[in-house]
Order: sequence, then structure tokens, then C-alpha cells
Amino acid sequence: MRVKHKKWAAPLIEQHPEMMVNDPAKYAGHWQKRFAKEQPLRLELGMGKGQFVIGMAKAHPEINFIGMEIQTTVAAIALKKALPEKLPNLQFINADGADLLEYFQPSEIDELYLNFSDPWPKKRHTKRRLTYKSFLTEYQQILVPQGMIELKTDNMGFFEYSLQSLNNFGMKFDGVWLDLHNSDENEHNIETEYEQRFAAKGQPIYKLTAHFDD
Amino acid sequence: MRVKHKKWAAPLIEQHPEMMVNDPAKYAGHWQKRFAKEQPLRLELGMGKGQFVIGMAKAHPEINFIGMEIQTTVAAIALKKALPEKLPNLQFINADGADLLEYFQPSEIDELYLNFSDPWPKKRHTKRRLTYKSFLTEYQQILVPQGMIELKTDNMGFFEYSLQSLNNFGMKFDGVWLDLHNSDENEHNIETEYEQRFAAKGQPIYKLTAHFDD
Repeated sequence: MRVKHKKWAAPLIEQHPEMMVNDPAKYAGHWQKRFAKEQPLRLELGMGKGQFVIGMAKAHPEINFIGMEIQTTVAAIALKKALPEKLPNLQFINADGADLLEYFQPSEIDELYLNFSDPWPKKRHTKRRLTYKSFLTEYQQILVPQGMIELKTDNMGFFEYSLQSLNNFGMKFDGVWLDLHNSDENEHNIETEYEQRFAAKGQPIYKLTAHFDD
Repeated sequence: MRVKHKKWAAPLIEQHPEMMVNDPAKYAGHWQKRFAKEQPLRLELGMGKGQFVIGMAKAHPEINFIGMEIQTTVAAIALKKALPEKLPNLQFINADGADLLEYFQPSEIDELYLNFSDPWPKKRHTKRRLTYKSFLTEYQQILVPQGMIELKTDNMGFFEYSLQSLNNFGMKFDGVWLDLHNSDENEHNIETEYEQRFAAKGQPIYKLTAHFDD
């Protein structure tokens, strides 16, 4: 997602260290201390403008959520949206997801969300896809044993790739949906901003839930 | 596939024991003797009117093919279509696929095709789906180690189910296509009768290739 630079973004982030973390390595192994209660912790990689993770945090007060976003302006938009909600179970990280092992201790995360990740469609960019095996290896380390990944995308090629990559890695599928919005699974679906716009055009949204077999 | 009873079906089958087998258990372990050459052997379960398996046998003289069909009239239609082709690498079976272990010895088959199998959409019929685990167990036995299954379907629910079932069984995916006819994989695709009619309506055909991890 590309957005225009916004002057207020960096200052807003600086003003809210209680909610937005810029130096996540500092909290490795201690994330629970940033929340009101110690309870299961789920991470969204690439939260974009935050609609999904904010919606999840509101719907599930019994779970702690972290939304991570590399782009400062985008993270600031999520922050602006989240502040009025005063959610004690939501934290944000403005950093690059490539260094996950520095940010989290083994088994610190209970579940991982990948929503509408960049599909990197060119074959030479395969290694950048967030479902490439090197990323899966990292997710497995920061997740609890049998830790789950929930993935949504509108990109057919990325979904085909992800089905194969997660399968080849040895992950076990818990659910596959080739048209999420017209399935029973949609009843408790919380949409991302992108998903809302995209699904309005009538194109299918794909979803996969799978867990590591360790 | 339901077809009208045809008077000529049973007599035609009786006239061609060189091509159509009614008592497949008799050939268990000896299928290669029914072909001109001993070469890799592939089986299509539910060949319908035979267009796919006949097309494959023509395109791949270096491989032996068996098409299996439970309905006598349907099997007879396939036979009628195949006879003029005089293919030395094609055999048919008119029998129920539920007894595979009686028809084939372990490792006798190199590859298995499931094309547009009955989706049995009702939950209480799950065990009848040809990708249910009890069937996978049988396929694994008659197939060589690392034996491959190639599956095509137009039924979204059956494809979602099959992705999960094959994955949960421990099979490894070699390829997933959510719109076969608009993919590179379609270049060497041989269509079934049903596929031809269905795809003309512009709806997607799904394909999965996977092998047992043994």
C-alpha cells in the first residue's frame, strides 16, 4: 500500500510511545508488560491502516493484539484511528517485519495474521513473499508449538503459491476458503480496508488457516 | 454423471474383452500383461465417457493408461469412442472403485487421476468423497512410493475439501491452480467432456497435483 507522506505522521507517533513502538527489539520476551492483562498474544504482519487489528481487538478483549507496519505514514494512520478507542489489548509496531527474531522471543506469539500481503508476482521476487519458507521458519520460531497462521488475500497467484509453500513446509491446514465472503466463515470475518473496497467489486477473497506441525 | 440406459452397451462390452475388463481382481499384479509394452501405468478413477484418458493415451504412447468407470452405459460410450483409435496403451475397467485393493497390487500404479469426481456436498456424505482419507489410504497402497495424484474439478467446495484432506493426510503439493484454463499449466491440459462444457461458461477449473510423502 502506498500513501502520500503526511507531515503529522512522525510527530503523532512520537507523542504516543504508550501505544506505538519504534524499537521493538527492546521488548523481546516482555511484550505482555505493554498490555493491561497477560493473555494470548496475536500479531498482524503488515496491518496497513489498522482496520482489521483494531476490529479484532474490539471484538476480542480476551486477547492481546499487535499490529506491525513498516511504513511510518501508514502506521500513523492506524494510530490515529486506534487512539479514540482506548483499547488496553492493542499495541502497534512501526518497523520492518524482516527482523522478527529480534523482536520476539521463541513462543511469544500465539497466532499470526497475514492480510493482503504484497503478492510479489514476479518469479525472481519469490523470496520476498511473506509465505516463502524463510519467513515460515521465522514464524515457527516466534509462535507457540502448533502455532497458527491466518491468511487472507485477493491475489490468486499469491494464494496458489501460499497453499503450496505452507503445505511443502509441513504445515497442516485447518480451513481453506476460495470465496470467503460467500461462505459461513464470513460470519465472524473482520475486513481490512483493502478487503472492503476489493470485495465490493464482487471478486473472491481467499482465506487459509494452518498450523505448524511441531 | 447420469446417462440413459442404452441397449447396445452391455453387448458391446461383452464383445471387447481385449479392451474392457469386468473382473479386475483377476488381473491384480498382472496389469502390464494387458498392454503391448511394459511401461509406467496410470489410472483414472471415474473416466466418464473417456475423452480425457483416451486423449492422454494418444498424447503419451510411452505410458500405459487404465480408465475405470462404475456405470456400464458410460463405460460402453468410452469403449465405443476408443475402439477406432486402436491404442495399445489403453485399457478400461467397468467396476466399482471402492475395491481398489482387490484390483491392484501394492505399487502397481504410477499415477492416479481424479477428474470432476462427484463432490458429495452434504456433510453427512463426506466419507464418499474420493479425497476422503480412507480413499487416500487405498491410493497410497496401490501407488508407487511418492506416487502422484492429479485432480481437476469445477466444484469449489470439493476443491477446498480436497486441499485440506490431502494436506492433512501428509501429501505434498506439487502444483495448485485456481483457474487452470487461464494458466500456463493449460498448455498441455487434456479436457474431459464435462470440463469442455463447463469451462465454456467461463467458470474456473481447479487443479491440484500432489504426491504421497512416503
